[in-house]
Amino acid sequence: MTRIGYETLLHFCQRIFAINGMPPEDAQLAADVLLSADLRGIDSHGVARLSGYLRLLDAKRANFKPDWKVIHETPSTACIDADSGLGLTIAPKAMKLAMDKAKVAGTGWVAIQNSNHFGIAAYHAMLALPEDMIGIAMTNASPLVAPTFSKERMLGTNPICYAFPAKKYQPVVIDMATSAAANGKLEIAQRSGKSIPANWVQSKDGDASLDPDELKKGGSLLPLGGHKGYALGALVDLLTSVLSGANYGPWVPPFVAFLDPLNDLPGKGIGHFIGAMRVDAFRPKETYYTHIDNWIQRFKEAVPVDPAQPVLIPGEPEYLIKLERIKEGIPLNEQVLLDLRQLASKYHVELAF
Amino acid sequence: MTRIGYETLLHFCQRIFAINGMPPEDAQLAADVLLSADLRGIDSHGVARLSGYLRLLDAKRANFKPDWKVIHETPSTACIDADSGLGLTIAPKAMKLAMDKAKVAGTGWVAIQNSNHFGIAAYHAMLALPEDMIGIAMTNASPLVAPTFSKERMLGTNPICYAFPAKKYQPVVIDMATSAAANGKLEIAQRSGKSIPANWVQSKDGDASLDPDELKKGGSLLPLGGHKGYALGALVDLLTSVLSGANYGPWVPPFVAFLDPLNDLPGKGIGHFIGAMRVDAFRPKETYYTHIDNWIQRFKEAVPVDPAQPVLIPGEPEYLIKLERIKEGIPLNEQVLLDLRQLASKYHVELAF
Repeated sequence: MTRIGYETLLHFCQRIFAINGMPPEDAQLAADVLLSADLRGIDSHGVARLSGYLRLLDAKRANFKPDWKVIHETPSTACIDADSGLGLTIAPKAMKLAMDKAKVAGTGWVAIQNSNHFGIAAYHAMLALPEDMIGIAMTNASPLVAPTFSKERMLGTNPICYAFPAKKYQPVVIDMATSAAANGKLEIAQRSGKSIPANWVQSKDGDASLDPDELKKGGSLLPLGGHKGYALGALVDLLTSVLSGANYGPWVPPFVAFLDPLNDLPGKGIGHFIGAMRVDAFRPKETYYTHIDNWIQRFKEAVPVDPAQPVLIPGEPEYLIKLERIKEGIPLNEQVLLDLRQLASKYHVELAF
Repeated sequence: MTRIGYETLLHFCQRIFAINGMPPEDAQLAADVLLSADLRGIDSHGVARLSGYLRLLDAKRANFKPDWKVIHETPSTACIDADSGLGLTIAPKAMKLAMDKAKVAGTGWVAIQNSNHFGIAAYHAMLALPEDMIGIAMTNASPLVAPTFSKERMLGTNPICYAFPAKKYQPVVIDMATSAAANGKLEIAQRSGKSIPANWVQSKDGDASLDPDELKKGGSLLPLGGHKGYALGALVDLLTSVLSGANYGPWVPPFVAFLDPLNDLPGKGIGHFIGAMRVDAFRPKETYYTHIDNWIQRFKEAVPVDPAQPVLIPGEPEYLIKLERIKEGIPLNEQVLLDLRQLASKYHVELAF
């Protein structure tokens, strides 16, 4: 692991996106979203993915200058065609639209079709927090998860994020894959050569497995906690894509550019679902803040099993990692460093690390 | 088990509610909601609870003639004070309000404070289906679930329900407790004297346990799939109560009347959160139906592990139970039958079974 300064990596990603034709504000935004993943400790969704987005561009599956537009709307909703843009830049714009609608209608909800991966859901949901709104963000993703009773990859890790603003404490940020474990955790186990917990993956024949390499052998991820996780993954697929006009289920185009999308696509690109709810659309703002702070305090004080490990509030571990990484830099493994060095060389961008 | 006809039980519950002072339309509605649980196979939430609601009335914790009102609203939202009414009757009215708002604003969202248990979430969410809307219903509940790292009961089983209308197929109805298992499943294990799967409960000291009686010994339920289930339970608690003004966390009043609510309540009653989204607020209705039907068909055809057990669509098992029970009657165990016979005797209602 080598630690690289946050600002250095941010600037580097921004340059790479801009050199590849992204308008300056979008390059800045896309870099900001990517780096937010590294800051929050979601290493699988940060700079490690930079070259992946560029390969989608090279494969003409992503458009760095999308002419996105609202194709359907009501006072509290909209549907956006992202014109094959990156979710990294479309999702924050969709959240802006959702918040504008919430300012007038109380809530705003935006479904997005024809997009590409949007980084971490928490980035987009958390944009609502400074406006005293609850932020919601979901996306579907390349199929890796088998529904209960199946051995076929039918759903992505389909994350759900809800961010609740707080005052005295940090916001409550719930950001979770609906699979038992996300890819990132499998990759960590692969690198360490360790077996993984039960119920994370199954073999291609549907047998139980503790092998972190099972996915490479044609196996599938398992849904969170069994059939309920399958239902949650389905929920995200329906909201993000059946509602927006994006692809769903096994038709969601793979993130990796070396795999082609299927031929008989029922929709366009991948789909997101973004929401914003003004807290004062339900009760006075001050009262809301008094009670969310009280909620957080009471949960922090819940009797722990082990006094050395107090109860954590959703979003708290990621916030602590962010504080540390802003100060100490972002740890990158050799593979990611090599990847970035190759990009620097290919696009003639000076590397400060 | 004895099977009793659906209409017989419906009429019986309606009479009991009416005799106890509930206005006729409310008595009909409350009975309809209760019986919908029995029809869908959620036996813990149906007629088995009838006497529990009456004990709340006797304890002056429930009001069968509530003067409920909207205390806050915007074009797409409202907050309701349920005046200690039953969630059974308030939640459908809140859904009606959410749908009225959705007709104008595209979506409608109603948070409810000062309520009591609302039966099964699916009943309320599914009210949106005939109007071509996606229905959402959540509630918090008496604390039984310990957050990750805690041995204290801090959250209810806090269910989440999303119902999606379909045309060629039955609707997709996702209705799930955010605990690993709901009470009903523990009770079945208790009656059969069998041990339960790992990670359903823990002892009062926070130790792993397979004992179905652990809750009676001061233990707690565990969240679905570990810390993600804790986050989902928290999500429901925040939406239903911190947003509405109801009680949250360990302060949620117990359903059983023999346990008093705590003294230092931060809110009023228990809380619900209800939503309705017009599908044509996002895309044309016909297109939506084409794709949800295609989604369902494709998931039904997902390659099964065992060809004898095809993949199920969320809501499908409950629908099949309903078909069977409407025809064959609702199976009641001896304890529930005795309970109903005692009610019949107490309130001089003729028993047709």
